[in-house]
Amino acid sequence: MQKSLLYASIGLNLLFIAAFLFLIQSLGGFSYLLYKIQNRGVGMVYDHRKSLFAVLETAPESIVFLGNSLTQQCEWAELFNNPAIKNRGITGDMTTGVLARLDEIVAAKPRKLFLLIGVNDLLFHPPSIILENYQQILQKIKKDSPATQVYVQSILPVNNALRSTGIKNADIRVVNSGIQALAKEFDFPYLDLYQAFVTPEGRMNQKYTYDGIHLNGEGYLNWKQAIATHVE
Amino acid sequence: MQKSLLYASIGLNLLFIAAFLFLIQSLGGFSYLLYKIQNRGVGMVYDHRKSLFAVLETAPESIVFLGNSLTQQCEWAELFNNPAIKNRGITGDMTTGVLARLDEIVAAKPRKLFLLIGVNDLLFHPPSIILENYQQILQKIKKDSPATQVYVQSILPVNNALRSTGIKNADIRVVNSGIQALAKEFDFPYLDLYQAFVTPEGRMNQKYTYDGIHLNGEGYLNWKQAIATHVE
Repeated sequence: MQKSLLYASIGLNLLFIAAFLFLIQSLGGFSYLLYKIQNRGVGMVYDHRKSLFAVLETAPESIVFLGNSLTQQCEWAELFNNPAIKNRGITGDMTTGVLARLDEIVAAKPRKLFLLIGVNDLLFHPPSIILENYQQILQKIKKDSPATQVYVQSILPVNNALRSTGIKNADIRVVNSGIQALAKEFDFPYLDLYQAFVTPEGRMNQKYTYDGIHLNGEGYLNWKQAIATHVE
Repeated sequence: MQKSLLYASIGLNLLFIAAFLFLIQSLGGFSYLLYKIQNRGVGMVYDHRKSLFAVLETAPESIVFLGNSLTQQCEWAELFNNPAIKNRGITGDMTTGVLARLDEIVAAKPRKLFLLIGVNDLLFHPPSIILENYQQILQKIKKDSPATQVYVQSILPVNNALRSTGIKNADIRVVNSGIQALAKEFDFPYLDLYQAFVTPEGRMNQKYTYDGIHLNGEGYLNWKQAIATHVE
């Protein structure tokens, strides 16, 4: 009786563990779930922002900042004191997300477009996949809005000593090399923000961030300084 | 032997459960942890945004939109085609967070201030606490920047049929009654957004939201329509 109870108890525990692992796997894997949970606080932010952008009119003379949370969290028009600047950042966005909403971006035929995307992708994909998507993004802009001046911005370093971001700076450098090569291929300027934010030890300078990946006011001033001559 | 093994196994299980409950409690309780996890995706967004606002200059003729994610996620200057509008929303913010950054807001002496805050508080506090904080917010603005025209906006309804938000519309209505009374006390206009977003069944109209609490483009157009005469 006790023996069968023990076996039943242990068997049940194993079953729970197996069910848990199966559930995680079938829901998209651990990294994906972590990402979903982390982004749940802002709800369906991608769909909501995309829907907002659809009701905003982007005039042809506009300067578009396209990217993820790093772009969304800033007030660019204020930072540059230039109302032509439009924030088209979406927290949590990746190269695939940018591709899926690029039609609306290029349809407005912006005068300039500052692109910074790819760091979130590194939670799920190797650099090669990211660079394939990146190539498609640049190709589509060049084809559908050839008069738009695109500025290809490198990915910023992260600081895993401050907080574990789950992303490796070595991977970021690989992606950045690829992005730089693509920029040359498409004849777009490449703006090396990585160098503007990195310490000699090879991570994001912690005067620019409190969590190792997002930026504070000093961080945005540093970004502004690095690209100001191209914005004006 | 088997009996002691069984007891040890069950005892270990109980110990794990107890440790888990103790851990959650000592980390601030379940609601708090859920809130922290949900907001982790945007990092230390409060500190980063507050730091950004400190480096942005808010001109005296500005129109400030002050609030939480509902305010942050919109591009207000674009929506109203008015560069005087400044976005001072922070995802996840509450009445206490607004109080803690109100000095910088009022120091700039904005011409107008549209306030919408309090729904996140309902995950942790009863309406009475929220209204005490709200009273302090209005008092501080009135005292430190008496020329600022404040617009007190009601909290929007949520839609728990679409997705469980953890917040009850009955509580929101209680807070809104209190906010309306405070607005009258301070002689500020009260803008009833609850009525502009609610269905006859008493929840957020689902044409304005995909997750039951945040807004899509239609939602922001509806908000614009409800307050446009006061913004211009």
